[in-house]
Amino acid sequence: MKKTALHPIVGIHACEEALRARPESVAKLWVRQNDHSESIQRMIQEAKRKHIPVEVQAPSQLNRISQSHQGVCIWLSGFPQLDWESLSRARHGQVLILDGIEDPQNLGAILRTGWLMGILAVFVPQDRAVKLTATVAKVASGGAEHVPVEYFSSLNGPAEKLKSMGFWIYGLAEEGTLNLWDMQLPEKVAWVIGAEDRGIRAAHRKLCDELVRIPQVAGGSSYNASVATALACAEGARSGLNPK
Amino acid sequence: MKKTALHPIVGIHACEEALRARPESVAKLWVRQNDHSESIQRMIQEAKRKHIPVEVQAPSQLNRISQSHQGVCIWLSGFPQLDWESLSRARHGQVLILDGIEDPQNLGAILRTGWLMGILAVFVPQDRAVKLTATVAKVASGGAEHVPVEYFSSLNGPAEKLKSMGFWIYGLAEEGTLNLWDMQLPEKVAWVIGAEDRGIRAAHRKLCDELVRIPQVAGGSSYNASVATALACAEGARSGLNPK
Repeated sequence: MKKTALHPIVGIHACEEALRARPESVAKLWVRQNDHSESIQRMIQEAKRKHIPVEVQAPSQLNRISQSHQGVCIWLSGFPQLDWESLSRARHGQVLILDGIEDPQNLGAILRTGWLMGILAVFVPQDRAVKLTATVAKVASGGAEHVPVEYFSSLNGPAEKLKSMGFWIYGLAEEGTLNLWDMQLPEKVAWVIGAEDRGIRAAHRKLCDELVRIPQVAGGSSYNASVATALACAEGARSGLNPK
Repeated sequence: MKKTALHPIVGIHACEEALRARPESVAKLWVRQNDHSESIQRMIQEAKRKHIPVEVQAPSQLNRISQSHQGVCIWLSGFPQLDWESLSRARHGQVLILDGIEDPQNLGAILRTGWLMGILAVFVPQDRAVKLTATVAKVASGGAEHVPVEYFSSLNGPAEKLKSMGFWIYGLAEEGTLNLWDMQLPEKVAWVIGAEDRGIRAAHRKLCDELVRIPQVAGGSSYNASVATALACAEGARSGLNPK
């Protein structure tokens, strides 16, 4: 199923990146009728060069996919796939575990940053989680075409597997005892990011080796989930867990 | 004008923080009729304790302010004010200069992070800039009640003033020669963040002491403006520019 069913993505940046990075997965390109903008015309040329069908569509048709289409939609087969084998062989790297992120803006933003930070994979427990929608791909701005997202009914299995591969699991939490900026990171790190309102659920806290807090001046609020993710990934990138 | 005209903010977190941090500026509290949720009831009690008028409103009335009201709206007089005098006296600190940020989500996210990171002020050139709307305050989740935002017709004046107070002005740009993570930061830093599509405008680049890049693995995209801001502010916070 995952390999054959088509799913749409929208937005200039996301569609450009899909054409660039995964042309073999692009089934067709939809463009808004009478849209003569440079970026759309460039994508049409690129699609033709790669023998990808181009179809002109009424705005109403594109709106049915997502209101934020920017005149373009691409139908893709499959998503970037996680390769457990290469994850196991990797000498260093970072992955993310998202616990209850329900906001498509947040998941999109996390995939965008994750791509740029060289994150190897994103793990998501299926319940209360947002799916990889057209909006997520648009916000990810290309990131959804690179970072594999794996959904699981329970995190226990993947968490144990990650640990057996040498990953350390750190949960981001205000009450964490470790300060993110004082840590000596190991070579393989899995960051757990909780839902904004509820944080990391108890069942998933137990899977964490440590809880880590991101320093903050004020106490009345906490960092947005995608900002917290970026700060954690940056810490790993700084420590040389990813190429620069 | 700025001190007397009322402006609305919406959302549980933003309104709670306004009641907590700036009760003297709260003119009245609007709550959705028949909303018996705990957080709304708590705010009503808090308002009564502080002698702030509470008015019950139909949902349609709240929707006219912003669709994302969450059942609550607060009418505020004035915004947090910048105190140039204390900015001048500060021994260390960070401020932000936003060049052409037009997305309310981005400004809100920046104010939220800015608050938690102890940012002293945000400067915004008036053209092509988003204003401090109810939506911005909601996304800021309390940050708009703390971080002063100053609008200017030209950045030249404030930039010179900041420099004369000892601030170094760093523009975030992909083509920057300095690597954010290798810098030895001075005690007072102003970060310039450009619009996502166009980056920092030429006229404002000239005001920068240096251009700084945030390392990234992939080249096809760049960090979202609010993520880039968070990464820069974190660098300052790590360097001890803010209290922990």
